[in-house]
Formats: sequence, structure tokens, C-alpha cells
Amino acid sequence: MRGWIVNRPSYIPPVQVGEIMRATTVVRVIESQHPAHPVGSFAVGMFGVQEYALSNGTDVTRVDPELAPLTTYLGALGMTGMTAYFGLLDVGALKPGETVAISGAAGAVGGVAGQIAKLMDCRVIGIAGGEAKCRHLTEDLGFDAAIDYKAEDVRRSLRRHAPDGIDVFFDNVGGAILDAGLINLAVRGRVVVCGGIAHYNDEAPAPGPSAYLILIPKRARMEGFVAFDYADRYPEAMERISGWLDAGSITNQEHVVHGGIEDFPAVLAMLFKGENTGKLILAIE
Amino acid sequence: MRGWIVNRPSYIPPVQVGEIMRATTVVRVIESQHPAHPVGSFAVGMFGVQEYALSNGTDVTRVDPELAPLTTYLGALGMTGMTAYFGLLDVGALKPGETVAISGAAGAVGGVAGQIAKLMDCRVIGIAGGEAKCRHLTEDLGFDAAIDYKAEDVRRSLRRHAPDGIDVFFDNVGGAILDAGLINLAVRGRVVVCGGIAHYNDEAPAPGPSAYLILIPKRARMEGFVAFDYADRYPEAMERISGWLDAGSITNQEHVVHGGIEDFPAVLAMLFKGENTGKLILAIE
Repeated sequence: MRGWIVNRPSYIPPVQVGEIMRATTVVRVIESQHPAHPVGSFAVGMFGVQEYALSNGTDVTRVDPELAPLTTYLGALGMTGMTAYFGLLDVGALKPGETVAISGAAGAVGGVAGQIAKLMDCRVIGIAGGEAKCRHLTEDLGFDAAIDYKAEDVRRSLRRHAPDGIDVFFDNVGGAILDAGLINLAVRGRVVVCGGIAHYNDEAPAPGPSAYLILIPKRARMEGFVAFDYADRYPEAMERISGWLDAGSITNQEHVVHGGIEDFPAVLAMLFKGENTGKLILAIE
Repeated sequence: MRGWIVNRPSYIPPVQVGEIMRATTVVRVIESQHPAHPVGSFAVGMFGVQEYALSNGTDVTRVDPELAPLTTYLGALGMTGMTAYFGLLDVGALKPGETVAISGAAGAVGGVAGQIAKLMDCRVIGIAGGEAKCRHLTEDLGFDAAIDYKAEDVRRSLRRHAPDGIDVFFDNVGGAILDAGLINLAVRGRVVVCGGIAHYNDEAPAPGPSAYLILIPKRARMEGFVAFDYADRYPEAMERISGWLDAGSITNQEHVVHGGIEDFPAVLAMLFKGENTGKLILAIE
């Protein structure tokens, strides 16, 4: 979302001043002429930051609150889950038994990615800000270790927790934390470039990872991706993730703020202050 | 070589103070008890920077001056050629018709890589320092375009020469030139991280590529490699490259300095001043 409001070409056109902010939303149908979406049913789609939206049904998926709490369709069963699933398994090509480190691990995507990696019998190290988030990672989400980047030297802690190197570094953050991950890569390690929240508010180009040349001796790669590209495989991912949710082997973490449309900018800004744990949702009732 | 004399772990142990500097050399056999290497024959191996060396024949390959000039075994038929071949075709996964840009293009590896890319029916853009090197790329090596980084805005020139984006950016340089390549990547572009000569003399960590987050919208990757890993496929590469050399479809570019052992440091330093075109060789007679 932060990238969408910068006026430059990207994988999706930027949102212009005066346009409705793009957002994935879960909605309740209050009027309908569409047989697949009767009044009272629920749906998920890109309806944007507004109280009422009109749709012809294109790219709108009906969702069943009996199968999963509605907010799950924004989290583990939504783009959050798709991003974690395809980023880790396809871009990262994660194999059972490997060592994974995740930055922004207490965030929406990081938390799902770490839980999936645990189900793959991987050793999972999370990096997050503050003791509470770190405790959440190890106690609630089953991570093997957590590193508090506000209190620890991340580079040194990664070396301690992954003495044989990191096979997959799933990066949501960038900056010095990405460098710490690069320096600790194993031979043939993969950096999944999922996001770079440390950089989204940069007004001028900021230094990139100074350790990138380690890609040579480590025969390693850094790769970016856009989860939308995997749309034809969403059913596969959703089926597996809902199986795991039903079995209780992963949990959907969310941080719901109740408010109005006017609260949206402040809620978005919470992400940049690290104020959320799990999927940050603005609930308008 | 520059990396080998920094005292830190890498893909090969660093050369220690007082040790003989590691170097690939072509030698003449002056005394022998080895049937494969009679007196008067020639061989290539890691004999280091010294006038005389002793070997039991391990990792030493006899070479025939009738088949190719001896220096070719240090250039297109040596590690230079192996690095260009596997970097471009395996790491870069170059496909016919794609657009390739190469930094350090007038250097040893860059010149071979560009010529191989032309044989793959690719559009090839070279980046080099100075008008003479640029003319060499287009007139002697058949590059489609050359950019003089000392006189041009590389980012803008790349956009002009590759309006649909760069599929493979073969980087020997790093720094601002790598950023210019990243910004001009095509969707699913690959950056082959072959070297970073702009950084080898850095005394402290320097900023990395500030544009690395473009890997996300471009679904692109940066990947490092070590040509030694492809040792079991050297015969394949050597057979193809010697076929191209024989057919005159590529030429071996070299820059030979005649001198003594004591000239080695000054000759190595020429690389960092951009004083060579093609493979830089110190010939001791």
C-alpha cells in the first residue's frame, strides 16, 4: 500500500490523488442483483478504502464465515497467506530441514511464513522489534528462536542461532537487517525479497545492502516476487493453509483496529512504527 | 585475486603474508619425471606468482601451443572463458533474442561474455570507460551498443539502448553502474553478480545497490557464482569456445605486459585503474 501511493510505475498503477485508496476488503452484501452474491452474504475483493462499493462481481470471491472467521480471508487465507506461501516455497524453494530466518517476523506475512516453515521441519529464526513480539514468536508461533533487533546485534545473533548459515532469508525489512542476513547466508542460500519496510518512507535513494557481494562466494541469490503472479495456484495454497488452520497447526494472527474511514491513514502508519502484531485490519462497522 | 589478499573467509582460503601469491599460470616444463608432462611441453595450473614451481601433476593440464596461442589458456579457454560461459548461460539463463548488458565489458570476462551473447542472437550493450574501449566493443567485438560510463549517464543510456528492459545484466563492477542496471531490468530480469571491482578496494563497507527493491516489481533476481563449481563441465565449455575461436566467431582479447615477478603488484593495480583491455597477463621470459 505504501508503494501504491508513490507516483511511479510499478507492478500495478499508482493510486492518484483524489482516487479511492486501493485495499483488499471483506464486505457484506447489502443489495444485489448477482445470483452468486445474495444480500447478507460476504465477499472479499479489492473494494478500496470506502464504506460502500459497487461491483459487477468481477474478481470478487464469496466467503463463508462458517468456514473461517471473516478476517482470516485478509490474513492467512488472503494475500498475506499467499505471499508467505509462494514466497517461501516457490521463490525461496525451501526444503525440509533447512534453516530459515525471517525479518518482520511478527508482522502478517512473517508470522505465516514462519509457521509454514516449521511445518516443513525447518529451523526457524524470527527477527522482530521488542521483547513482547519475540516472546510471541517463540511461545505462540513455535519459532525456534527470536532476535530482538532493538536490543541485539542481529548479525551476531543470527550467527549464534544459525551457526551453519541461513538457507532462506525471508526479508520484509531491508536496511541493516538485510545485511545481517546476507552475511549469515549458507552456501546456495536464497534471499526472498518480500518487502523493505525500512525503505518505503525514504525520500531519496538510500544505501542498499553493502554485503551484496557475498552472493558470489556463497553462490547465493536474492529474488523478488509479486504474489498476484500465482493467482492460478491460489486454490492449492488456500486448500493447504485452511487444512493447517483447521488442524490448529498454524494460527491466523491479526491486529484489528475498530474505527472509521478517516482512521485509515493513521492505521497504515502503525505499520511503520512497528505497532502491529499479525495482520493489521481496520474494521468499519 | 584482489579478494584473495583480504584476510577473511571466502570460497577459497586467503593468501597469507609471506605466502606465494595464488595465480593461474601457463608454464613450460623444464625438468620432469611425469610421463604426461615431458620436458619442453606446456601446462596450465595454479602455480602462483613465481618463476619456478614444483608439481606432482595434480590439477595441471597440458596444453598444446599448436591448437591455440598459449595465452588463450588464461583467457577465452581459461577461467576467463569459463566464468563468462557459465555466468551468462547457467546463472543468467540467457535465451536467444534477449537483451544483455555487461559492465566492465572491455575487461577479460566481459569481452568473452558479450561475444557469446552475440552468438546467441542477443542484443548486447557494453559499458566501459572511455571512447577507445567503447569503439573496441562495437567495432572489434560486435557489440550492438557501448556506453562510456565516464562520459554518459549510464542509467539514461541503458534506457535508450534497451527500451524494453534488460533481460540479463552481467555485472563485473557494482556501485552506481549496478544501480543503473537494476533500474533498467526487464520483468523476470537476472543480474549475474560476477564481480564488483568498484568495491574490491573499499576499506569499510560501502553502500550497496540502492535500487535493489526493484527486484520485487520486476520479479527479478541477483545471483552470484564461482566458476570453479562448474569444473566437471569445463570440457563442454572449452569445446564450444574453441570451436568459436577456430571459426573466428569470437576472438581472444588480451593485454600482455612483459616484465618480471617484481612487476606483479603494479600489473594487478592496472585492473583498478581500468588500464587493460581484455585479459591482463604478466609474461615473464
